[in-house]
Amino acid sequence: MKKDGGFSPQCPVPDSAAWRGEIQAAHGGGGRAMHRLIEKIFIPAFDNPHLRAGLDGAIVDAAGVRIAFSTDSYVVKPLFFPGGDIGSLAVNGTVNDLAMCGARPLHLSAGFILEEGFPLDVLELAAQSMARAARAAKVGVVTGDTKVVEKGRGDGLYINTAGIGIIEHDLEISPGSVRPGDAVILNGDIGRHGIAVMAMREGLKFDPPIESDCAPLADAVSALIRSGIRVRCLRDLTRGGLATALCEIAGGSGLEFRLEESAIPVSDGVRGACEILGLDPLYVANEGRFIAVVPAEEAERALLVLQAESAGAGSAVIGTAGEGGPRVTVRNGMGTSRVADMLSGEQLPRIC
Amino acid sequence: MKKDGGFSPQCPVPDSAAWRGEIQAAHGGGGRAMHRLIEKIFIPAFDNPHLRAGLDGAIVDAAGVRIAFSTDSYVVKPLFFPGGDIGSLAVNGTVNDLAMCGARPLHLSAGFILEEGFPLDVLELAAQSMARAARAAKVGVVTGDTKVVEKGRGDGLYINTAGIGIIEHDLEISPGSVRPGDAVILNGDIGRHGIAVMAMREGLKFDPPIESDCAPLADAVSALIRSGIRVRCLRDLTRGGLATALCEIAGGSGLEFRLEESAIPVSDGVRGACEILGLDPLYVANEGRFIAVVPAEEAERALLVLQAESAGAGSAVIGTAGEGGPRVTVRNGMGTSRVADMLSGEQLPRIC
Repeated sequence: MKKDGGFSPQCPVPDSAAWRGEIQAAHGGGGRAMHRLIEKIFIPAFDNPHLRAGLDGAIVDAAGVRIAFSTDSYVVKPLFFPGGDIGSLAVNGTVNDLAMCGARPLHLSAGFILEEGFPLDVLELAAQSMARAARAAKVGVVTGDTKVVEKGRGDGLYINTAGIGIIEHDLEISPGSVRPGDAVILNGDIGRHGIAVMAMREGLKFDPPIESDCAPLADAVSALIRSGIRVRCLRDLTRGGLATALCEIAGGSGLEFRLEESAIPVSDGVRGACEILGLDPLYVANEGRFIAVVPAEEAERALLVLQAESAGAGSAVIGTAGEGGPRVTVRNGMGTSRVADMLSGEQLPRIC
Repeated sequence: MKKDGGFSPQCPVPDSAAWRGEIQAAHGGGGRAMHRLIEKIFIPAFDNPHLRAGLDGAIVDAAGVRIAFSTDSYVVKPLFFPGGDIGSLAVNGTVNDLAMCGARPLHLSAGFILEEGFPLDVLELAAQSMARAARAAKVGVVTGDTKVVEKGRGDGLYINTAGIGIIEHDLEISPGSVRPGDAVILNGDIGRHGIAVMAMREGLKFDPPIESDCAPLADAVSALIRSGIRVRCLRDLTRGGLATALCEIAGGSGLEFRLEESAIPVSDGVRGACEILGLDPLYVANEGRFIAVVPAEEAERALLVLQAESAGAGSAVIGTAGEGGPRVTVRNGMGTSRVADMLSGEQLPRIC
């Protein structure tokens, strides 16, 4: 099951009497509150081994063929932002979840929830953007649904996509496959999606403008696997950012992930924006970034393979897995380490 | 692609300068406006053979295995109604779309769009209802997603489900397979879902109460196929009702469908409610009803097979396919026939 708002029960979620009550923004933020919601309501109701696997999607068998299956709803606000829009996001987000299962994405479904009064020409732009993103990711939008809700019961346009992909290798890609000593590779600079959307929403201008990193990741993953790299675990960094994604893998593997702060690529623009806004780039959302955990002895080769891919040009080894977990620690330039927890509360509502 | 709010381009959709503008309730009603929207925006953007096949879902190939893939979003209002709720609907609706492709449903995804302030205990009830319906339909909810939107940007709870199923036969189940002379079988009385939801919403009381027909249909379809019936076409009757579903098949097959009004089962309760509300039962939504088009010489056997299934106890032959289409005609007790068009406008908003 998937982490990004998905049903992954990976991280230990502290119980609390306060979980009962009402839905709050934080329940959709990708952090602790959301994990608690999933642990308390969805996991017990739908209990099955696929849910408990803690992946970005489910890997199911269909007549002997291994199929990856994943879904996400997209409620990003605003609908269009520098570097992307709800349409490209709805394709890349789900394609990337399939890629993180180690699958080659094949097909998407699309469900549209439209609010009365939403302009048809804007809907057309969003659909065309989806179609372009689908072509770029080599998937088809093969089935769909449209629903309309009254004014004040939606926000113009929400899109759900689900996707299926095929698994064409024998690797067991999951947090449980990570071993002490493994290297953690990140495919580029972090935080651009979150900052681009927030800047647009708040009317902030950066010079040069910060564009979302929204991009399909399946080719980069496929290149790793085709090269024979024994990929242990993959996870894309969406809501909750790099720190939350690694916390989930730490929870699933029982290991400590030790990051070198200086090795984590952050653009000057994102760094500056985070300083102004009081955000930690480790927790800002991405839509075209992922971590690949690989055996240490294959890290250099994996890096070369990724750097040859358009979605991996900025790849870097940012840390290692070790005994002592489950937790994530970040060592700064002075050589002191801090623990990075899962995002708590809501950082950027409706970021995807 | 699917008809129920889906992207089926089956029926000829008249062009109109008026299609541009804004989303209106009718765009989600399952009738002409929705088909026009799909024809004008989604089909051109996502153009591919799966979309043009005009099924309730797409049938795709995965390493030689035929997989059915379908999706629906559920925005029913109210969330709980006699005979069902948004949870059971979200499972049965998608399971039935897979069944209408001739597939055995395997797995569902679930995407939740939650409005701030929605009570967690109601969410839990809905999730538990989904889980019960999934067990009854022999599918697992194997992957999911949760998103939260601000108060006034949703309506408590919207659910999207997508589903995958496996096709275990060689039949070509589609409107294009229907032949003149084929028999049309309906699996029970129509209109209960639409009336049950509307009664709940409007505070109308019927004695005895009218309960939704919401039910999984895969076992009934599977029984037909296992019995060797050469099923030509299947379609479940949801938004737009029996008439709209048959109009879609008429459009896809180019044939006329001639119904005998007296053969169409309608309960006294639904008949009375329709009279009071000024509705035509042929257009009222169902969530556990489907039509199976079968060769005339196999109709009697198909009927016996269906009647032995819990979802088919009330099955009846209600008409035949013939030359002269594409259109749907209904012959009344006096022997005169009228043409039944696709639903135009919006009959019952947010019925599913």
